[in-house]
Amino acid sequence: MSRVTVYEVGPRDGLQNEAATIGTTEKIAFINQLSDAGLPVIELSAFVNPKRVAQMADADEVCARATKRPGTRYSALVPNLAGLDRAMAVGLKEVAVFAAASDTFSRRNINQSVEESMANYAEVIKTAMAADVRVRGYLSTSFGCPFEGDVPVDRVVRLTQTLLQMGVFEVAVSDTIGVAHPGQVKRVMAALTALIEPSFLALHFHDTRGTALANVLTALDFDIRTFDASAGGLGGCPYAPGATGNLATEDLLYLLHGLGYETGVSLDKIIAASESIEPVVGHPLPSRLYRATVATLPR
Amino acid sequence: MSRVTVYEVGPRDGLQNEAATIGTTEKIAFINQLSDAGLPVIELSAFVNPKRVAQMADADEVCARATKRPGTRYSALVPNLAGLDRAMAVGLKEVAVFAAASDTFSRRNINQSVEESMANYAEVIKTAMAADVRVRGYLSTSFGCPFEGDVPVDRVVRLTQTLLQMGVFEVAVSDTIGVAHPGQVKRVMAALTALIEPSFLALHFHDTRGTALANVLTALDFDIRTFDASAGGLGGCPYAPGATGNLATEDLLYLLHGLGYETGVSLDKIIAASESIEPVVGHPLPSRLYRATVATLPR
Repeated sequence: MSRVTVYEVGPRDGLQNEAATIGTTEKIAFINQLSDAGLPVIELSAFVNPKRVAQMADADEVCARATKRPGTRYSALVPNLAGLDRAMAVGLKEVAVFAAASDTFSRRNINQSVEESMANYAEVIKTAMAADVRVRGYLSTSFGCPFEGDVPVDRVVRLTQTLLQMGVFEVAVSDTIGVAHPGQVKRVMAALTALIEPSFLALHFHDTRGTALANVLTALDFDIRTFDASAGGLGGCPYAPGATGNLATEDLLYLLHGLGYETGVSLDKIIAASESIEPVVGHPLPSRLYRATVATLPR
Repeated sequence: MSRVTVYEVGPRDGLQNEAATIGTTEKIAFINQLSDAGLPVIELSAFVNPKRVAQMADADEVCARATKRPGTRYSALVPNLAGLDRAMAVGLKEVAVFAAASDTFSRRNINQSVEESMANYAEVIKTAMAADVRVRGYLSTSFGCPFEGDVPVDRVVRLTQTLLQMGVFEVAVSDTIGVAHPGQVKRVMAALTALIEPSFLALHFHDTRGTALANVLTALDFDIRTFDASAGGLGGCPYAPGATGNLATEDLLYLLHGLGYETGVSLDKIIAASESIEPVVGHPLPSRLYRATVATLPR
């Protein structure tokens, strides 16, 4: 029997990409439902510039007021020392930095080259660790860049190593634009796990091309045991042009539980959380398992 | 490099489950685009009772008038000897019978117990083979029945063997309600391939719970090399209650080509076929790859 950690990004990566403005109270109620479902870790928000990401402007209040379930880890994105200060001020013991594997994406996303961002994050990680705050590292565009196209595998390996050397406890190798397929996951995972222990790696897939679960299945073969997911598949709607939803937590749980992996998460309670947030975001949530389930329930 | 056969069921299993009435001319134009895409086999229609399945009432005309591309096989469903006669009258050299692994589904679908249907199909297969017409066998509800729930694996194995002994060239082991997940696919495939050569087996998945590609990936490990799919994911819309779409041909091709399998099928031409049929069926097609692609194209 093997355990898999489902890293819930719905309140952050999910809601951040929703068009509707979500109220702070609704966010907190949603997070509390997710905690109650038994998720081992929830990314609550992002301490980023509210002028750039209005949806995350209430990060401080969301992080402070959400009920903290014993045994669940709570995290948030921090782009710099100012963000880290805000995260520590509300008592978070875990944060995440977000680097990218391609310069063009990095410049457009955080206005820094990859190299500049690494220097910045080195300082953030050092400061966090000195205060006993754990840091996760995202590596966006690891499977492809919307501007540069293919991303060399050796660059992904080198940057993953850099983040780990700087002190992050794990790197979320991320398919930001949802192009990864199992053939590519095999190549990237073979290169990464040749040099890095699988327990230092997480995978973050978007289901843009329907391959996310097949990618997870491939990564499991490389002993990866942490996967990011978003309740209901929040953050994307397959009928909206260009929308790229996160892998849905429900779909991931159906796969993992069917394979006999333990997650500690209640699929029914995740579905209930999705049912609560669906009218708030104002469009049908794309999770296939969720849709198949709610369609058969009395509404 | 290994070759995989994509068995296209869009014109039959896809359109049959669409609410809009599709004109014969539109069906034929769609089929001709699919042929042009290089598909090795296309299921054109079903010679069933038009009072029960109005969408398939024009089976004779569709099968007769569709352009037959050299090298592509064309098939149709036949429920009985009368259906076989109609299929042979329009010149088909391949047909398919559809049995089920659960009695309740069999009775509701074809008004016969599983045993009664096998006796009926034995006669159909014998007659077809005597006329040099190849017969495929479907085994519906092999991964679960909407009425009976779990279906014993040994029953699936036994009925697959029965169909093969009766003379079908392959059995399409079918997840009619889209509940299969890789854990279950492993168990069913291990039992089947312990007794049956993989080349006699095809897999027919619906993507109701988002697991279809992960299921294909699992089945590839058991040397299965024929998979059913429907252009655009026709036959289901994730936003319609209870709708259960076939695995989309586009999504399957993206997976297979990414793994380095040869299919002989042009993904671009399948997307073009889906773009033509989408306004005819009157709702967005659910294929993730299709949606991700058309959203980035000028419309």
